[in-house]
Amino acid sequence: MAGREIEQLIQILAKLPGLGPRSARRAALDLLQKREARLVPLIAALERAAERVALCRECGNLDSENPCALCADPARDRKTICVVEEVADLWALERSGAYRGLYHVLGGVLSALDGIGPTDLDIGGLLRRIGVPSHVKEVILALGATVDGQTTAHYLADRLAHSGVAVSRLAQGVPVGGELDYLDEGTLSAALKARQLV
Amino acid sequence: MAGREIEQLIQILAKLPGLGPRSARRAALDLLQKREARLVPLIAALERAAERVALCRECGNLDSENPCALCADPARDRKTICVVEEVADLWALERSGAYRGLYHVLGGVLSALDGIGPTDLDIGGLLRRIGVPSHVKEVILALGATVDGQTTAHYLADRLAHSGVAVSRLAQGVPVGGELDYLDEGTLSAALKARQLV
Repeated sequence: MAGREIEQLIQILAKLPGLGPRSARRAALDLLQKREARLVPLIAALERAAERVALCRECGNLDSENPCALCADPARDRKTICVVEEVADLWALERSGAYRGLYHVLGGVLSALDGIGPTDLDIGGLLRRIGVPSHVKEVILALGATVDGQTTAHYLADRLAHSGVAVSRLAQGVPVGGELDYLDEGTLSAALKARQLV
Repeated sequence: MAGREIEQLIQILAKLPGLGPRSARRAALDLLQKREARLVPLIAALERAAERVALCRECGNLDSENPCALCADPARDRKTICVVEEVADLWALERSGAYRGLYHVLGGVLSALDGIGPTDLDIGGLLRRIGVPSHVKEVILALGATVDGQTTAHYLADRLAHSGVAVSRLAQGVPVGGELDYLDEGTLSAALKARQLV
């Protein structure tokens, strides 16, 4: 029905996260029907990104500068490193506007099931950046509240135990706007344990 | 946080149907992190499509051949033309495998609200293809069961009234797999009116 070029485009689009075969077909059709408004700018943006964007050699962020704009920003607090699993987590924290230190992207978490060990993550790079003796005062472990995320946090806390650097993790509790009725027991129990005087 | 090239890519992806700002960000990240597996093939597929795919001059389908593979297929019944709003509708009918005639893509439907009149649609092309006297036996109006779709169907039926060509429309009724309980009154009423002896 549709030509081979269209089918190939749909297949590649369908592999993107958040797109399935049906939405990939709609996206392909939209691109082909709005050639000047959609297809041409998308090709140009992808080519520019392919040419210029790379992993920051310091922290693992994706940026067109290297070191990235965050690592190069003299206004950021260089005594704090926030460890995240993926670049997407770094972006999410930046959107919050609540953090002004540096980051370190591990590139995943330890996982016995998926066969991911310490050497598969950028833990060596993190330890090198912290250094001995260290100018870093605090490492914040901003890893997911999953079993693998917490295993990785424990592992890193162990590795940093004698470095003289403070190691912290994100608070667990009721999400802002969250209704208690809809929260799982684990979150409620964590929020209760970490309750604070007002 | 993310470089200008990444932000531009996210903005363009977010305009595609089915993608919002959040899924566009995830898609961009996936593309940039899997450069060889995702980004490079997507650029190549988009460039091939931009270069080769065009509207079929006969029916308005999108294809890399012109006339398209459907119009050029000698096995298809050239005495029947199925009129659809958009290329997506043509593809949906082709997936059903239930139709073996030719198509005609109008490029939309009449809409007083959106200011779309007969000259904004490819009605002239349809009438030329049908011709007088016509070798076409039947025109199937496969337009949406919306107010605008049905207005357009009425308009086309009027224009074809004296052409000697049979004009039909898709049956309305209970969708296959549909539970009566979840159907709207209009569908139930149409299904009841068009009930068939078994």
